[in-house]
Amino acid sequence: MAKRFALFLLTLLAGAALSAQELSPIALPPPQTDGGRPLMQVLRDRASSRAFAPDPLPPQVLSNLLWAAWGISRPDSGKRTAPSAMNKQAMDIYLALADGIYLYDAAHQQLKPVAKGDLRALTGTQPFVATAPVNLIYVSGAQGGSAEDQLIYGGAQAGFISENVYLFCASAGLATVVRGSVNREPLAQTLNLAPGQKVILVQTVGYPPKK
Amino acid sequence: MAKRFALFLLTLLAGAALSAQELSPIALPPPQTDGGRPLMQVLRDRASSRAFAPDPLPPQVLSNLLWAAWGISRPDSGKRTAPSAMNKQAMDIYLALADGIYLYDAAHQQLKPVAKGDLRALTGTQPFVATAPVNLIYVSGAQGGSAEDQLIYGGAQAGFISENVYLFCASAGLATVVRGSVNREPLAQTLNLAPGQKVILVQTVGYPPKK
Repeated sequence: MAKRFALFLLTLLAGAALSAQELSPIALPPPQTDGGRPLMQVLRDRASSRAFAPDPLPPQVLSNLLWAAWGISRPDSGKRTAPSAMNKQAMDIYLALADGIYLYDAAHQQLKPVAKGDLRALTGTQPFVATAPVNLIYVSGAQGGSAEDQLIYGGAQAGFISENVYLFCASAGLATVVRGSVNREPLAQTLNLAPGQKVILVQTVGYPPKK
Repeated sequence: MAKRFALFLLTLLAGAALSAQELSPIALPPPQTDGGRPLMQVLRDRASSRAFAPDPLPPQVLSNLLWAAWGISRPDSGKRTAPSAMNKQAMDIYLALADGIYLYDAAHQQLKPVAKGDLRALTGTQPFVATAPVNLIYVSGAQGGSAEDQLIYGGAQAGFISENVYLFCASAGLATVVRGSVNREPLAQTLNLAPGQKVILVQTVGYPPKK
């Protein structure tokens, strides 16, 4: 079983090793930064869900989701919807979609291609990750401080952003769950991370299954 | 200077060593779990602020703030406004107020006394922490997993909750800033933490200064 899983991972990695050049950047429509449900009701409805319809998110919903998560809320200063240690903004969000993995480029409102192919199964150990439309991968950079600080701040940074995603999903009728159960090393290789970068958490987003 | 600061800390610690029995539990009014501003506007206005009026928060505002942070949103299951690894809920919120330090008891809607005296200066290294009305102290318990997981999950858990506090403050017109710069050991001693517990982050909350 472990051997079959390792072979499966290798096959996925071989696919990812193909150039990402065949994938084009995806332009995101400008985010809608008004509206949404009242905050306290959204907090009351915030919940983890592990069942997802396979339908992709419309581009406008994806754009709004990413802006809520970690978008630029104050263009003059480049500050964002979530705080960061010393405003270092040492966090990247990668997205595993059906056709490949992309990097969220908040400044240019686009998704930059990273790896071609359906690599969603690499983002977790539970079956739903392979078919849910979006898996967000939170990757920490150099946070500064001690090795312990690095992990705490990386965790916190992923936490701030993940909670924004939870609340956006509660407001917009989407299902989501944040996960720590991920094989970090193979995923880091697929993303071609630099030595200082680390996969912290992964979060699945999609529509709830139709009844 | 370092010696004077150490003496200052010792004086504070000696004060905290006095029994907390002279402090009474503070009953919180039931939280108002409806209303608030629309989510996307709240995300747009979320910001860190390091200037606070000294005025205490009214009990209703404090109750709403703590419920938003880490309250019980689903009484049937005891689930909360922020997620936690394996739903372990391995996080406590302590509050350093002007008269002492308290533990947020979400199930009984009260603050349990922990240490008597104005110990707010122990919660950080910046001057404003000593006079702002509320400093929230996020303390992680046993998260499970490796030592690395423990720090990542503790950080993430504090991050989920802290972002809820940020958004509540943006909705309610309060100022707030989350901080990693805290002398964790003296604070852990004052709180009388168990060996598996760890101070992760601290967050200051209050009204913005009057203009």
